[in-house]
Amino acid sequence: MITQSTQHNTLGKPSLGHKSRSERRIKVAHLGLGVIGMEAVKALAAKPWAQSVAGVDVDPAKSGRSLEEITGVLSLADVPVYGSFDEMIREVQPDVILHAAGSSAAVSFDQMEPIIRSGISVVSSCEQLLFPMLREPQRSEEIHSLCIKHGAGVVGTGVNPGFVMDLLPICLTGVCKSVQSIYCEREVNASTRRMQLQKKIGSGMDPDEFRALFRAGKAGHAGFRESAALICHCLGWEDPEITENCEPIIADHNIKTEFFSVTAGQTCGLHQIVKAHIDGEKRLEMDLKMYLDAQHPHDAVRITGSPNLNLMLDGGVAGDVATVAAMVNAVPRLLKAGPGLHLMTDLSVPYAS
Amino acid sequence: MITQSTQHNTLGKPSLGHKSRSERRIKVAHLGLGVIGMEAVKALAAKPWAQSVAGVDVDPAKSGRSLEEITGVLSLADVPVYGSFDEMIREVQPDVILHAAGSSAAVSFDQMEPIIRSGISVVSSCEQLLFPMLREPQRSEEIHSLCIKHGAGVVGTGVNPGFVMDLLPICLTGVCKSVQSIYCEREVNASTRRMQLQKKIGSGMDPDEFRALFRAGKAGHAGFRESAALICHCLGWEDPEITENCEPIIADHNIKTEFFSVTAGQTCGLHQIVKAHIDGEKRLEMDLKMYLDAQHPHDAVRITGSPNLNLMLDGGVAGDVATVAAMVNAVPRLLKAGPGLHLMTDLSVPYAS
Repeated sequence: MITQSTQHNTLGKPSLGHKSRSERRIKVAHLGLGVIGMEAVKALAAKPWAQSVAGVDVDPAKSGRSLEEITGVLSLADVPVYGSFDEMIREVQPDVILHAAGSSAAVSFDQMEPIIRSGISVVSSCEQLLFPMLREPQRSEEIHSLCIKHGAGVVGTGVNPGFVMDLLPICLTGVCKSVQSIYCEREVNASTRRMQLQKKIGSGMDPDEFRALFRAGKAGHAGFRESAALICHCLGWEDPEITENCEPIIADHNIKTEFFSVTAGQTCGLHQIVKAHIDGEKRLEMDLKMYLDAQHPHDAVRITGSPNLNLMLDGGVAGDVATVAAMVNAVPRLLKAGPGLHLMTDLSVPYAS
Repeated sequence: MITQSTQHNTLGKPSLGHKSRSERRIKVAHLGLGVIGMEAVKALAAKPWAQSVAGVDVDPAKSGRSLEEITGVLSLADVPVYGSFDEMIREVQPDVILHAAGSSAAVSFDQMEPIIRSGISVVSSCEQLLFPMLREPQRSEEIHSLCIKHGAGVVGTGVNPGFVMDLLPICLTGVCKSVQSIYCEREVNASTRRMQLQKKIGSGMDPDEFRALFRAGKAGHAGFRESAALICHCLGWEDPEITENCEPIIADHNIKTEFFSVTAGQTCGLHQIVKAHIDGEKRLEMDLKMYLDAQHPHDAVRITGSPNLNLMLDGGVAGDVATVAAMVNAVPRLLKAGPGLHLMTDLSVPYAS
């Protein structure tokens, strides 16, 4: 057995353009203390480079209390929760806000404008912010200019959108000379997920009621077209025609979760498909199933190109933990990227910070 | 079927911090016209954003000719190949040099110094440049300073090291709240690879001869410890003890490739393992088999953390094509990153440019 050993002390040194894990801790405030927001508070508490300095939530059952009372993290006994950003900013000046307060880019931009004007950067779980130019091109330009003017960075991230059906396939193409087409497939066992997700996939609904809600933009997976648009953007696939379809998955047996009781014949999940055609040719197809009692959760990516790539994540990527992780891990990289409205693909390669 | 259609024209626009595919084409020269260097010329010829302006090779059979004569790319009939960088720089001023001329960081740095002094950036396939601080900490600092002074960027990339056993697992941890340990496994069917690779894995050698050559640093997979060091660096695993082992794989039947004839009992490949211990605890293990007639080529990554992740690339990632692609795709991202000696993880997320 041939063995070579190396012990070295240079790793982690602030050198070669790779910033050291900040000398002073990054001050973070949390806007939106729902399930994702609260989990982000807990995840951040484990990071030596960060410090939670405030929470913000409109819910009167939360504002006025401490982050410890709401999340159970003992070290946050003195960290106050405010009822609004305006209230908070009079007392605390964070470097970054973790924003977990909705799926709409337009609404999120309105919430962020005073934050950006205060020179504070924002990492958001807002699904449409993965590629805000898709639905809000004009407003995105304005927000970008505002960011530059006030020295703030903004990025939207998460696990889906944000990783498994966009960033991961994009990153894989980094070893491709050319890409002809991409196929992604994700199957999520919604029985293991939070109440809101079980609700948005239509658990227990009459199938026609679910169809109507999806049509009204009130059910279904948000941000799917944004995933497609980000992939097309990176690969230089110009003027894609992006189409989205969604059908309920019908329960063939009675299902009981922590939050819902579904009888056979009712909706127990969704099957949502996005395609992108460029010049009439299908280059991208993404197939998402999220339903109760799914037996084989997984994420798969198939790239047809030079070379072909065939990726499988057996068991898939656990949704809520991964979304919170993606947000927390984006913080140092967003600060490094500097002012502007950024895409995840503008930041450096993600990793567990 | 519910269908929503979006046709939009904003994609690819120069906006939101994402630079447009450069208004003027990036001028690229090619230093080292071996197999990888020549394939890079061909791959770059397909990119509308780049333009090959020169080749450089010490081989007198190549210098003095045109890139078309050497590579067969018809559009490169007027692009000269010089015998040295000094000769080239008197006539041509590229923006970037694709450097494919060796595995040693020390040698590559010497070759690059005049390039950097000319303000030209370098994307290199030099394996040790994936994490140059491992073997050349002092010289890396000097080169970094030189880069800053002369406005040049340098990065080392490839498929392995450069992607499957470092960047890919690193990127996966971007959706992890915490990482306990990482295991990577790669099996390569060397029968499908170029002559140099079949040679460096010991094809046809007496097993003891291969062991001696590996010990002397003249055989085996280069850059494996660099992959481990980059992972430890990103994850904040300080002062890793990195150990490396390599044993020949012995042919159990006669094998004939395009380049070698191996009889049973001779070496037909290698089994190389790198581990990283932090404070006495094993956090990282990487297992690489490259041998002739391997039946199940694949890349696998298993992350133990929150969440666990279990990735498989069935068939693996084809080596030479992917290395060339990684180099070409790094060009625009290196220029965007600005001056300095960079790590792949300092650049933005890779994708097929």
